[in-house]
Amino acid sequence: MPKIKKLVNNPNDCAAELLDGLVEAYDGMARKVGRGGIVMNGLSAGKVGLLVGGGSGHEPIYHGLVGRNLADGAACGDIFAAPPPDIVLETAQAVNQGNGVLFLYGNYAGDVLNFDMGAELAAEEGIETKTILIWDDVASAPPDKKNDRRGIAGLVLIVKIAGAAAATVGTLDELVRITTKARDNTRSVGCSMAPGSIPATGHPTFELSEDQIGLGMGIHGEKGVGLLPMQTAAELTPKLLDIIFGDDLAFEAGDEVVLLVNSLGSTTMMELLIVLKEAKALLNARGLKVHKTLVGPYVTCQEMAGVSLTLLKLDDELKKYWDMPCSSVCYTQM
Amino acid sequence: MPKIKKLVNNPNDCAAELLDGLVEAYDGMARKVGRGGIVMNGLSAGKVGLLVGGGSGHEPIYHGLVGRNLADGAACGDIFAAPPPDIVLETAQAVNQGNGVLFLYGNYAGDVLNFDMGAELAAEEGIETKTILIWDDVASAPPDKKNDRRGIAGLVLIVKIAGAAAATVGTLDELVRITTKARDNTRSVGCSMAPGSIPATGHPTFELSEDQIGLGMGIHGEKGVGLLPMQTAAELTPKLLDIIFGDDLAFEAGDEVVLLVNSLGSTTMMELLIVLKEAKALLNARGLKVHKTLVGPYVTCQEMAGVSLTLLKLDDELKKYWDMPCSSVCYTQM
Repeated sequence: MPKIKKLVNNPNDCAAELLDGLVEAYDGMARKVGRGGIVMNGLSAGKVGLLVGGGSGHEPIYHGLVGRNLADGAACGDIFAAPPPDIVLETAQAVNQGNGVLFLYGNYAGDVLNFDMGAELAAEEGIETKTILIWDDVASAPPDKKNDRRGIAGLVLIVKIAGAAAATVGTLDELVRITTKARDNTRSVGCSMAPGSIPATGHPTFELSEDQIGLGMGIHGEKGVGLLPMQTAAELTPKLLDIIFGDDLAFEAGDEVVLLVNSLGSTTMMELLIVLKEAKALLNARGLKVHKTLVGPYVTCQEMAGVSLTLLKLDDELKKYWDMPCSSVCYTQM
Repeated sequence: MPKIKKLVNNPNDCAAELLDGLVEAYDGMARKVGRGGIVMNGLSAGKVGLLVGGGSGHEPIYHGLVGRNLADGAACGDIFAAPPPDIVLETAQAVNQGNGVLFLYGNYAGDVLNFDMGAELAAEEGIETKTILIWDDVASAPPDKKNDRRGIAGLVLIVKIAGAAAATVGTLDELVRITTKARDNTRSVGCSMAPGSIPATGHPTFELSEDQIGLGMGIHGEKGVGLLPMQTAAELTPKLLDIIFGDDLAFEAGDEVVLLVNSLGSTTMMELLIVLKEAKALLNARGLKVHKTLVGPYVTCQEMAGVSLTLLKLDDELKKYWDMPCSSVCYTQM
């Protein structure tokens, strides 16, 4: 197995260096806070805060979702590692404008542990926080065990809604209500064709044979629902969507949805667009109306090859927040 | 060499199928025209037209630059192949609103041949066209042989300016003047660490040893200025920028620029951000002011690993067009 060539400096400093680069990508819109935080400049006094975060190495998320009408800040960990409590605290302090901060991140044990400790530290500083865990990956646990589900690409859509809501609501409780609805209306499923590699080791994060697809694999290569033989987009796409439609959220004719076709890294936009064509035909056949389509590498696992599909079911309130413009490195809407 | 796994249907139909998917990604904003065109809906009568295009397989460009305040249409060829004249004609007819159409595309022999034939066919239909070739790749020929230079990632910035101008100018000649200035103010250089593969064959488009970087390689793996040993981002980034600064366009202290750090495909956003950090420090040291930074996979060569840097020097007029909002699958600005 050849060692993967990565254009970095010290492989152990990648998370810190990419964060410096990310701040530069914001052209003055955001700043670095402490050693692992990025926070919007010019937050208005009294604004209800939205803090996201998690391990690095999945760029452009989470840290790239800091933006106008998006997250106010992100607490960033090392590659594939949760941000430690002091980074969570420092970032929360910078985000806080006196009206509370929502912590919104993927449901991984390390993240929960560290964000919860950060929340305790924040409480000691007089900052009110609430937490919503993102668990959109339907392939990671059955519907009656949502607490065991992982957060994957659906986070982009949930943060989009939460960010728009955070820009307009008056209370943290109202932001919690709206974000919970967005989270509960979002379902994703992913698959992988080839692993990514961790910069510090140059080694792939898992193994997969040349003719296999890992169905339901997570964004670090976690176990999914099984292995499939390599197949066409037309064959695989309905299998992915059926996993979502077989879950406990009803998608009925006439429902409006946001559709995200996500690349885990090296899967080309060409492939995503072909999967999108297949997915759109299947959604149309069910009578679903796609209000907005996103396609591209939003939630990645280094250069992993793979695709995930996400559906967010809209109602009038979620649609209103969806339609607000937003701007960030990860996602911008005019 | 293992055959690359790609999630497609018939490998020979990829260009047609991805175009269908791209139209879906526009959610009704654009439509398919003929067998290889994509055109904005609702173009206003009398609007000066902007038509881009080229081979497929480089998504999200060119076709993804069709959008609001961007290109009005794109003529799309097969994978890495120019669009034939009939597709150019059909797309130009759909773009034309009675006030002429600018053809704006990369300087490749096949594209020039086919777009020129399309222009002749359009003239026979009474459609006035002008052509501007994009040749931003400084590593592909010396400054006194611009006609031999290739178009690479700089096209994103040039189309952004041209699209904003096309939305506001009254005549084709005025659009030609502004777009020519944007083109002449843009310089790029790229490099590659690993090849992409053509879907129809599954074979890489070139070979590169495990410890080499192809300096100045083109977006299909064309020859550049030489081979370098694999090195760090801090070592490579100044070498790339020096090639741009050694060219015939002066970048002087106080100049404002747009910076694009582009991934050729599988190079991670993590790597791009580290290169961006290095590049920004070097630009700052020269006294250049980065007005806007773009970072991501905009101009790709399938899953090729590689990075390109582009600088567009702004003046007041170009900055005005740069700052207009725009919306497309490839690039959106609030």
